[in-house]
Amino acid sequence: MSTKPDSNHLIFGRHFSDHMLEVEWTAAGGWRVPRICPVHNLSLHPGAKVLHYAQELFEGMKAFRGEDNKIRLFRPDLNMKRMRTSAERCSFPDFDGKELIKCIRKLISLDQEWVPYSSSSSLYIRPTFIGIEPSLGVAAANRALLFVITGPVGPYFATGVKPVSLLADPKFVRAWPGGVGDKKMGSNYGPTIYIQKHAEKMNLQQVLWIFGEDHQLTEVGTMNIFVLLINEKGEKELVTPPLNGLILPGVTRQSLLDLAKTWNELKVSERVITMKEVLDALKENRLLEIFGSGTACIVCPVNRIHYMGHDYHIPTMEHVQPLNLRFLKTLTDIQYGRIPHKWAEEIEDVPGIHLESVEERV
Amino acid sequence: MSTKPDSNHLIFGRHFSDHMLEVEWTAAGGWRVPRICPVHNLSLHPGAKVLHYAQELFEGMKAFRGEDNKIRLFRPDLNMKRMRTSAERCSFPDFDGKELIKCIRKLISLDQEWVPYSSSSSLYIRPTFIGIEPSLGVAAANRALLFVITGPVGPYFATGVKPVSLLADPKFVRAWPGGVGDKKMGSNYGPTIYIQKHAEKMNLQQVLWIFGEDHQLTEVGTMNIFVLLINEKGEKELVTPPLNGLILPGVTRQSLLDLAKTWNELKVSERVITMKEVLDALKENRLLEIFGSGTACIVCPVNRIHYMGHDYHIPTMEHVQPLNLRFLKTLTDIQYGRIPHKWAEEIEDVPGIHLESVEERV
Repeated sequence: MSTKPDSNHLIFGRHFSDHMLEVEWTAAGGWRVPRICPVHNLSLHPGAKVLHYAQELFEGMKAFRGEDNKIRLFRPDLNMKRMRTSAERCSFPDFDGKELIKCIRKLISLDQEWVPYSSSSSLYIRPTFIGIEPSLGVAAANRALLFVITGPVGPYFATGVKPVSLLADPKFVRAWPGGVGDKKMGSNYGPTIYIQKHAEKMNLQQVLWIFGEDHQLTEVGTMNIFVLLINEKGEKELVTPPLNGLILPGVTRQSLLDLAKTWNELKVSERVITMKEVLDALKENRLLEIFGSGTACIVCPVNRIHYMGHDYHIPTMEHVQPLNLRFLKTLTDIQYGRIPHKWAEEIEDVPGIHLESVEERV
Repeated sequence: MSTKPDSNHLIFGRHFSDHMLEVEWTAAGGWRVPRICPVHNLSLHPGAKVLHYAQELFEGMKAFRGEDNKIRLFRPDLNMKRMRTSAERCSFPDFDGKELIKCIRKLISLDQEWVPYSSSSSLYIRPTFIGIEPSLGVAAANRALLFVITGPVGPYFATGVKPVSLLADPKFVRAWPGGVGDKKMGSNYGPTIYIQKHAEKMNLQQVLWIFGEDHQLTEVGTMNIFVLLINEKGEKELVTPPLNGLILPGVTRQSLLDLAKTWNELKVSERVITMKEVLDALKENRLLEIFGSGTACIVCPVNRIHYMGHDYHIPTMEHVQPLNLRFLKTLTDIQYGRIPHKWAEEIEDVPGIHLESVEERV
């Protein structure tokens, strides 16, 4: 078993646990039996479709160790649902999401010592699906590999829960109607790296993706976005862009919407919101908070937006009891088992599943 | 040395030559020395960026064996220029295109028996560039691998030079302003596979990618598109969409434009052309030809477009001396050395280049 990194100094995505899950699929033979084995390099032909045509998708989930020492998954059914939708759009075969969760539970159970003993860290889980047929025609692979790797992570941003600054530049477009912006396919991410670097050169931490001539807010970095404002009718309104094909249907996004609706204290809207509406609200002191949401960061406040040559200060953390912190506390209370909730599913007995082999020794 | 497949029955992209070229880059150490070695599986960590975020790009080139038994490359400088542009947008390091061509010449020289003895086949060359750092943050890889594989190919489409039918459906959009549609990044291809399968289910062979409310023609399958018509002024005009960011700057596209301008027999335009203009011309018997252009197929005539529920018959091959066949003949005459031309660069003495090792035995 490898040495665990210090859970107070984890850089996102750098550390991997001892084991991985893999299941191969072939057009001729269908799904093979899943296999848990030590994390190992994949042996891929240089003509594999994934390396040329990005026939690939992934998911991001987490397992949390509570103070009661129980390990919990957060709404894994939503990740499986989205993964199957991505698989269809990526021309991969369908699979049984419940069975994959069982396999993931078994994997985490085996590597349970990799789930940090910390309530600010967790075990990140990365299901991935790639086309591995070695053939250069642009077509669906007749061989594919679904694998799951895991690793301990701290907060996604090195700045911790400190607010982040954003670049909003209409020159760069993440997703468009008729594309795949609502699927977790690798092709949505590669093209963003350049813009992220561009933002960093401007001393901005993330990209606020805007769309259309009216500069609609869509997503922020790899997160969904939320705006809390007093709207023109004087109502306190929490707004997030609608699932119109441009937006990734985030599990955290859905959970924040669900929580806010349960609280029933403010208007909750999935609707288009433009930069103009945000800046008008800011000018009239009606803008309360802007924050991102995602599995990696959970909730991430925004304190500055650079847009059309101007810097706009966003007072996200300057109100009494910011909503984003309440969301963060509630969600982490659920995730770490401090509040019992059906969204947090304990990993205890892993039910008997049929695995080809479990090679436990590393 | 492996047995060569019958050059009359080659399926595109299925056969690989004996050797490959690989060069590794690291952020810390820069470019390593290129290496030619037997084609071998790549050993990639399952967290490699290319498998998750599609940090990947490729090129497509060909080497042709002339009746004089000399082997020629076609305008490789244009591929290198485009590859460096893709690399920049993909957040990869820059490289010396001339040096890479030298390495490719050496590779082909070593595998020269893989260049088919046939004037309807050729050796396809696939330079590829992938991010291999095993780390799950969405960021540029600090380790990357540039490799080149090659393999003998026949005509790209199994139908040979027979005309193809197209699905033009505005629901599906390949590229968008502010995106990367003019770069040869893997992310442009993965999302097209599903639509290509959809077209095939409708008994259509390729997708005609249209864009915008006015349904502009942009590309066809993995090819650029050309329309030959008598325009409303009565001029014979060859039209291809402009390099406006949505269009891949094809080497064959550029070559057809260059040839047509040299011939000086018709108006040659890089301009927006819409489905309405095409269908109006068709109705008024002014539409002469539609064809795709690309390295894999060279020139590919179109005989049918399915659009908005209707089938439109395109008379591409029904005129005397179709332009697309003249293009095909001229280009292949140049490529196979029947017409001496500066675009066709002979591979003879491969100049002394510094390679780490050439492992010739397979």
